[in-house]
Amino acid sequence: MKAAFKRGTAVTLKDIPLRDLAPDEIRVKVQACGICGTDLHVNPTEGEQESPFGHEAAGVVMEKGCGVTCLEVGQPVVIESATPCGFCSYCKNTQQELCTDIKSFWYSGYFGLAEEMITPAITAIPCDDLPPHVACLSEPLGVAIDLVRLADIRPESNVLLLGPGPIGLMALSIVRRMGARRVFVSGHRVSTVRVALAERLGVDGFFDPDETPLAEVDFDCNIDRILVTAPPPTLADACEVACKGGIISFIGIGWGDAAFTRFDANAFHFKKLQLRASFASPALYTPLALQYLREGVVEGEALISHRFPLDRVAEAMDMARDSSRAVKVIVEP
Amino acid sequence: MKAAFKRGTAVTLKDIPLRDLAPDEIRVKVQACGICGTDLHVNPTEGEQESPFGHEAAGVVMEKGCGVTCLEVGQPVVIESATPCGFCSYCKNTQQELCTDIKSFWYSGYFGLAEEMITPAITAIPCDDLPPHVACLSEPLGVAIDLVRLADIRPESNVLLLGPGPIGLMALSIVRRMGARRVFVSGHRVSTVRVALAERLGVDGFFDPDETPLAEVDFDCNIDRILVTAPPPTLADACEVACKGGIISFIGIGWGDAAFTRFDANAFHFKKLQLRASFASPALYTPLALQYLREGVVEGEALISHRFPLDRVAEAMDMARDSSRAVKVIVEP
Amino acid sequence: MKAAFKRGTAVTLKDIPLRDLAPDEIRVKVQACGICGTDLHVNPTEGEQESPFGHEAAGVVMEKGCGVTCLEVGQPVVIESATPCGFCSYCKNTQQELCTDIKSFWYSGYFGLAEEMITPAITAIPCDDLPPHVACLSEPLGVAIDLVRLADIRPESNVLLLGPGPIGLMALSIVRRMGARRVFVSGHRVSTVRVALAERLGVDGFFDPDETPLAEVDFDCNIDRILVTAPPPTLADACEVACKGGIISFIGIGWGDAAFTRFDANAFHFKKLQLRASFASPALYTPLALQYLREGVVEGEALISHRFPLDRVAEAMDMARDSSRAVKVIVEP
Amino acid sequence: MKAAFKRGTAVTLKDIPLRDLAPDEIRVKVQACGICGTDLHVNPTEGEQESPFGHEAAGVVMEKGCGVTCLEVGQPVVIESATPCGFCSYCKNTQQELCTDIKSFWYSGYFGLAEEMITPAITAIPCDDLPPHVACLSEPLGVAIDLVRLADIRPESNVLLLGPGPIGLMALSIVRRMGARRVFVSGHRVSTVRVALAERLGVDGFFDPDETPLAEVDFDCNIDRILVTAPPPTLADACEVACKGGIISFIGIGWGDAAFTRFDANAFHFKKLQLRASFASPALYTPLALQYLREGVVEGEALISHRFPLDRVAEAMDMARDSSRAVKVIVEP
Repeated sequence: MKAAFKRGTAVTLKDIPLRDLAPDEIRVKVQACGICGTDLHVNPTEGEQESPFGHEAAGVVMEKGCGVTCLEVGQPVVIESATPCGFCSYCKNTQQELCTDIKSFWYSGYFGLAEEMITPAITAIPCDDLPPHVACLSEPLGVAIDLVRLADIRPESNVLLLGPGPIGLMALSIVRRMGARRVFVSGHRVSTVRVALAERLGVDGFFDPDETPLAEVDFDCNIDRILVTAPPPTLADACEVACKGGIISFIGIGWGDAAFTRFDANAFHFKKLQLRASFASPALYTPLALQYLREGVVEGEALISHRFPLDRVAEAMDMARDSSRAVKVIVEP
Repeated sequence: MKAAFKRGTAVTLKDIPLRDLAPDEIRVKVQACGICGTDLHVNPTEGEQESPFGHEAAGVVMEKGCGVTCLEVGQPVVIESATPCGFCSYCKNTQQELCTDIKSFWYSGYFGLAEEMITPAITAIPCDDLPPHVACLSEPLGVAIDLVRLADIRPESNVLLLGPGPIGLMALSIVRRMGARRVFVSGHRVSTVRVALAERLGVDGFFDPDETPLAEVDFDCNIDRILVTAPPPTLADACEVACKGGIISFIGIGWGDAAFTRFDANAFHFKKLQLRASFASPALYTPLALQYLREGVVEGEALISHRFPLDRVAEAMDMARDSSRAVKVIVEP
Repeated sequence: MKAAFKRGTAVTLKDIPLRDLAPDEIRVKVQACGICGTDLHVNPTEGEQESPFGHEAAGVVMEKGCGVTCLEVGQPVVIESATPCGFCSYCKNTQQELCTDIKSFWYSGYFGLAEEMITPAITAIPCDDLPPHVACLSEPLGVAIDLVRLADIRPESNVLLLGPGPIGLMALSIVRRMGARRVFVSGHRVSTVRVALAERLGVDGFFDPDETPLAEVDFDCNIDRILVTAPPPTLADACEVACKGGIISFIGIGWGDAAFTRFDANAFHFKKLQLRASFASPALYTPLALQYLREGVVEGEALISHRFPLDRVAEAMDMARDSSRAVKVIVEP
Repeated sequence: MKAAFKRGTAVTLKDIPLRDLAPDEIRVKVQACGICGTDLHVNPTEGEQESPFGHEAAGVVMEKGCGVTCLEVGQPVVIESATPCGFCSYCKNTQQELCTDIKSFWYSGYFGLAEEMITPAITAIPCDDLPPHVACLSEPLGVAIDLVRLADIRPESNVLLLGPGPIGLMALSIVRRMGARRVFVSGHRVSTVRVALAERLGVDGFFDPDETPLAEVDFDCNIDRILVTAPPPTLADACEVACKGGIISFIGIGWGDAAFTRFDANAFHFKKLQLRASFASPALYTPLALQYLREGVVEGEALISHRFPLDRVAEAMDMARDSSRAVKVIVEP
């Protein structure tokens, strides 16, 4: 079957064989797979070995291992990119977020940008009432849900979102739904479709840090909640803008020097700030994410800017890289 | 293999066959099984069909279904009486306590007071560093942990425990470990071994409600946390004794009229009380319970008053019923 | 100056003298005072001494004691009916809700249904940007905020409100703002203006318990949050309707037998319910309540069905008693 | 009256006049005042104007303003260094920790290292059952309580304390009381009295970062809670040592470059860490701190290494600077 592989910026389709299933695995025919920002960074240099990728998949169960009792062949499912094992000490102590034996297709070598994939049954969640290209958004939406939960949003919160990419826009939708008092967005104005979408979802102000340093913006209120989906160095800005008692939740990683953050710990101390890292691996809220998509809390169709068949996956990747035109790009094998 | 069955107060051993394992099941040789207060109420009337029972088991894995990858034959384990499935919407949304597809031997017909039992693999937790008669205490200890967690104990809390049975005494140990300021116990003085054990664990006062109504006791401090392991009608006492802002957590059920509680809602309102029900099904903290036993936070050996072989299970049940002499009674097949 | 007094159902205006201020007191010219359900129950029998009443007041500072530094003569204010002292051990330990030395006009003998009142300065909160008849709603709104906070509402919550009186309707507004998934209301259909207002605020279903017992209603979803502003006996219904893991927050008191609640503690236990009493004395969220009124989270004008001058206070009381016609009734001295 | 003033490292006593009291103020005869680490940094350079200092005071009320009703002349009190006003929007919304109108002697110009001080009455807390030199420890102990609360310590927590100064040792006492599983301390071995005291309070390991970099220490368990009372640059170590899901709470400020912290945000992200700043201004737990001292949760006498009369305040300051010999130094005017 055909699967996408990446090395440097080159993306190619290769024919690869499928192996037999382990007792707890299933084989899934992929119907849709989203492209995530981290996909663009897989194997960044030419020198490395090429790898399969894609981790936001929805499809149909084609076959199951002998030990799988919770799923049927023919069932439409979404696939979590990482799932708590349910068995380790953390899972059994109600701390699945710290699971030490995460289950994922990641270790199987079969990823989502392919005709088929092999994955542990526990990573699959039945979903027969959303089209696959929308259902597969549950993966990044789970990330957004975790980011928002960490920030403890209330109706009186004045929220600033740094980074209106797909996950940021999903977080914006949720924060609006939760009745936050004000929601501001900081991003690059060149990303016109994202700016337009943010404005449609409802923002009280959009700021481009290239036009005005964030610390000089007059928000006309205290910013007490900040959601960061931008690279780590922006955390210094977040610390500067946050008011006393502020909470900053963040996702996202940086490469090289951008992996480090440096900020004024005195100000952090005197303002009683909190910095909380969100990392939604294992996935924690997939059924809730599906419910949000089903009920329009997050409008899946509105977030999808482009859809490509699998044989145009290279083109899909180029589009996903172009933040002036793309929001969410979906590949449909 | 031999298994205990109960009807009315009669307990007998019967030889029963073992069936084949489903893919996700294991067969366990039982080495120890505690007797719980609810066991005494199984099939209370003579007219009913006799039933197997016993749900606090530890033993060794003898055989496993084809889909079981997380356990090995020969491994010592404790068995949870109910385990979150890890797959339903509640489990996947981090609310396993509301699991809608609980896994348990309960549905297999093979219980813990027997030579062997069949149970879903996910209910078994490896434990090779505690003797089985101590390890099996993890089941009621998980109940005690949940009861205590709900009550939000702090170093400045003045705690009252209603019901110094095995679970109450475990809760007492934990509350002491958490540094609670005062811990009082209300129970029947006739339960001499339980009173003695409570005093050894450290109590600031022991009261017998048959000597002095709880509402007339002078605690010389505000009681702001109450743990109830006594029948529901005692909740009215708890509401009366609790100070403003108090939290009452409770477990336990009543039969007939004792299933109902009635209290002064005005007082409840003006005192801003909270009543929180603990029901540790599914089990949530088994690895933590094992850690508490291992490290002496709860002294397992001290709680065990009697140990019987399986063929004296009827005698064990009689002893468990005699709260003047017994604390925890263990059966060792 | 003129002040309203009540005995039985008789309400009269009397001329009473004002005394000198203590150092920490202020004298306030009352501009608006809401009528609360509890006002209708003041001195219910003819035999008692007549009393002044009214505790939802807004007005203007006329005079201040020598020790008052935080307010100026001429300043428009709202008056909290009870205020944490800021000095007792509870207040200084961040538990003002348990304040043991609450400050209030209640002890001064001068209440809100009067031309003027005397009250501790700490009970007054400056508010110059809302008309007094709206500003005085901050008192009951603080009650509604506390009720809602206790219930831990989330976007996925299915909420049931028992009792669409003024506080219930305020709670409904907040819960809608917080994005609750479903909100149902149980009340009497004869209260037509309240039903109409609830429907305007947005309800997913209105049920009259006189038509269909609550336990027989098909909500088509799990009710996991219940807000009760109805008399205590309705708590049994709430316990019956609540799904596993449900939280019931309640305010309100009953007279005579209606002070008691009785429910099935077994079901409460197996469903892991929580019952949490809200009693907003001392007041805790007055500035937030004013903000909600200012920004339309709660629409003050929409909740006010009638306004009367002080010399028609008896008529105002009769109207407030008629739940088929009145929502919130305001008296403007 | 005599008061201590500081410029550079020079500390001198000067005779200064007392002014009249404002209506909400009291005059206190100081009986004991602790020296805090930040006192050593007041006016660090010779060029600045000399300033009064000392903010950990206990004494007796000598006189009160006309508006003071909550205190009597002759009453022994401790003085909070900063107190929530009880009147601003944050205070009235239950967020006193964000009070925007903090009350303190700080603005009066009269500090604790003096024969007398003038302070707002609301900053004084009656305390007649502890000797003044112990009672004045309530100020730093309130800091320690806030630091520990932020860290959410549980019986299963493995805690690392960075900085066994007086506040760190107080935190250690509390954490032990709360039953933490393991408590490790990182400090300088040259501070022999502090090391000895830490060991007496109970540590599972003491490490000197000058001997072994913290990141190379084998703790033989996951460090999931870190309390930092050391300068901000140590936060990078804390982030490196913390296990997945770890919480780092910190106090303390740095001068110059030491005000900045830089750490690997990728690791912070992947480990889902939380960094929470504690800054106990305003003071929040003074009555609880007094209770802890009264009941021996924190042993005040054991923490006090030296006591000096006021005319030897310069000597007291030198001693406080010598961490090899001093823990807490108290001056008794």
